[in-house]
Amino acid sequence: MNESQIREKVKKALEDARKLHPLVPSITNTVTVNFVANAQIASGGSAAMVYLPDEGEGLAQLGNSFYINMGTLLPVYEETVPRTAKKLFELKKNWVLDPVGLGIGSLRKKIMLQIKKTPPSIIRGNASEIIGVAELWGVTEKGNSNGVRGVDSADPVQSAFSAAKKLALFINGAVSVSGTEDFVTDGKTSILCQGGSHFMEKITGAGCSLGGVTAVFAGVAEPFTACAAATLLYDYAGKKAGESCKGPASFQTEFLDLIYSSSPSELSQNPFKIQED
Amino acid sequence: MNESQIREKVKKALEDARKLHPLVPSITNTVTVNFVANAQIASGGSAAMVYLPDEGEGLAQLGNSFYINMGTLLPVYEETVPRTAKKLFELKKNWVLDPVGLGIGSLRKKIMLQIKKTPPSIIRGNASEIIGVAELWGVTEKGNSNGVRGVDSADPVQSAFSAAKKLALFINGAVSVSGTEDFVTDGKTSILCQGGSHFMEKITGAGCSLGGVTAVFAGVAEPFTACAAATLLYDYAGKKAGESCKGPASFQTEFLDLIYSSSPSELSQNPFKIQED
Amino acid sequence: MNESQIREKVKKALEDARKLHPLVPSITNTVTVNFVANAQIASGGSAAMVYLPDEGEGLAQLGNSFYINMGTLLPVYEETVPRTAKKLFELKKNWVLDPVGLGIGSLRKKIMLQIKKTPPSIIRGNASEIIGVAELWGVTEKGNSNGVRGVDSADPVQSAFSAAKKLALFINGAVSVSGTEDFVTDGKTSILCQGGSHFMEKITGAGCSLGGVTAVFAGVAEPFTACAAATLLYDYAGKKAGESCKGPASFQTEFLDLIYSSSPSELSQNPFKIQED
Repeated sequence: MNESQIREKVKKALEDARKLHPLVPSITNTVTVNFVANAQIASGGSAAMVYLPDEGEGLAQLGNSFYINMGTLLPVYEETVPRTAKKLFELKKNWVLDPVGLGIGSLRKKIMLQIKKTPPSIIRGNASEIIGVAELWGVTEKGNSNGVRGVDSADPVQSAFSAAKKLALFINGAVSVSGTEDFVTDGKTSILCQGGSHFMEKITGAGCSLGGVTAVFAGVAEPFTACAAATLLYDYAGKKAGESCKGPASFQTEFLDLIYSSSPSELSQNPFKIQED
Repeated sequence: MNESQIREKVKKALEDARKLHPLVPSITNTVTVNFVANAQIASGGSAAMVYLPDEGEGLAQLGNSFYINMGTLLPVYEETVPRTAKKLFELKKNWVLDPVGLGIGSLRKKIMLQIKKTPPSIIRGNASEIIGVAELWGVTEKGNSNGVRGVDSADPVQSAFSAAKKLALFINGAVSVSGTEDFVTDGKTSILCQGGSHFMEKITGAGCSLGGVTAVFAGVAEPFTACAAATLLYDYAGKKAGESCKGPASFQTEFLDLIYSSSPSELSQNPFKIQED
Repeated sequence: MNESQIREKVKKALEDARKLHPLVPSITNTVTVNFVANAQIASGGSAAMVYLPDEGEGLAQLGNSFYINMGTLLPVYEETVPRTAKKLFELKKNWVLDPVGLGIGSLRKKIMLQIKKTPPSIIRGNASEIIGVAELWGVTEKGNSNGVRGVDSADPVQSAFSAAKKLALFINGAVSVSGTEDFVTDGKTSILCQGGSHFMEKITGAGCSLGGVTAVFAGVAEPFTACAAATLLYDYAGKKAGESCKGPASFQTEFLDLIYSSSPSELSQNPFKIQED
């Protein structure tokens, strides 16, 4: 794919999301769940959050795609996440995995190793998380990361390029790495996107809601396009909101308003470049 | 009741909520819990959310009314919701049931069938949910609904008129149906309320928080008045916020500000009409 | 400590939080968890919320301090909170206990009695909560409180002065009491702080997020200074936001923006007075 083909696909993804309102269920953390739902609705999707195993499986069936975020694990996630992931895999549905907090506690690792057997079509995370998943799943050698600090990345985006590409090939889908610049790859084509705002690090949930919106676009487009559309929408709306806000809370309000009101053309004109190996 | 009697009662309900600050505990979903609490406080109530069975029972005793929303079920809800509903029923307290997500998973149906034995004084939902409860409880024949799509209604408000009236008579209380227009009935008197904004469908929790605010007014007024007061407040504040906002997030901010600042007279002048059979 | 020493310490605490970005994990309620995280980030910290026992212990090890809020107990808290508190105590880390909802249900009391054995370095609450903890732990005689009404205080701040001082000495740390005026004490030095806004009672989470921000400063300063810095920041930002907002929701937005943008000098000039016995 060349640049103008990507721009066309991204534009169509936003148009389709707003026309078709894909149903995008989520299993996600309690910290940012409201922001995720509102961002999903603002970008065109319909949101529905659940915790129970059979509800996860039921919505896997009903949904156009799915979003699973590992943020605040509850005991029931031990059953809910693997069963929902398995169902999504069997149904060949697009779904987004957000491996938040990798390295904290034992359940996260256990669930992540089960997910490896029924992998998602999209993984979205910060650089440390993407490197961490690639290492945990044996897709890359160990020792490339400075690790995760709580839920924050300790690595620059660039350090995750190789892991992201290998991981995308492994899942036969796409990987989205968020940071000062944002990297999207399907293992063959890769883009590096500019935009956003430093305020995105000053609110909780910029990453989670990007994952949720990626799942919205994955309900109407294939993985690479879904990642690119969500990332470019966030970069565009984030940059514009960051220029006029007075602080992190007014940033979030303006940002969500812009997620809703940005046009497909504006989105598709956001700067990015094809990243050569 | 005629129109001016309803207007007087609605006005008094808002006055009393702001004077008496009824304590309105909730068992509600994690997606919109913050919005529910803030809307309850803005309308005059005092909010307190719990998950555990004996805490539900304890707050049933302490509260002036109660709000139970079936949105994001956790395993412990299997015990908490029926026990709290039973306690509320025994204490003859007004409480609002919000049957979100009916049809997803097995636990929802099981809990809903237990609640039938100790029913609420108010049910609030979208058209599909109200038809669904009426059918599940055997109050109407099956086959009148297009079903629920995730948490969204697949039916227009009008299609729920009959189910809402029969359900209101069954619970000997009132039923509130939200949509483009809003329907409130106690089975004998029914009103159809105008107002609101299309932005209410572009944020998560407009319905949930309306349920929570209905519970606030149910702490100071009987069920029909509580439903009417909450619905008219939402229609008035929603319409006004929708005229000046820039998108869904600024809509929510202006809307909550108006829930707080709207006067009882403004509320009671919002358009509605008595709905004849 | 005299007034100008306190002002210097408070100023340095905000400077250090913004420079060092302490990692401040939390176990906190689902109602206000988003507000807590955003306030922690706005004041300079890095937030991470968990529910599981081994994740609490793991983050106790990693964090610079910790925040535990008893708001919406889940069943797993029975294990998570005591184990995390024990780990924090053994590691001699500063941590903030927010005893929300004391008196509701049986688990709260049970957990609170376990925490007594491995006490926090800071307790933050409204007057009724502070009196309640002091009585439960046998630090003061029973019978000094009008009790808690749901999650709201039924006592004025002044009525908690004695309990707060005794509790601060018992935990060998500091106690922060929020109300119309705010009281901070380490049992020897006490200050009474002015500012804030009546809108703080019209949103949910002003108290919780103050607890979370107190934990941020406890990651870079000793308990008394952490309490004073957080309280003065809230009083300063709250007063300023309250003067220009249009209602509770716009208050919260402006307030968070000001938590982010207030300078250490502004913070340290907020009015307070040393409270003599």
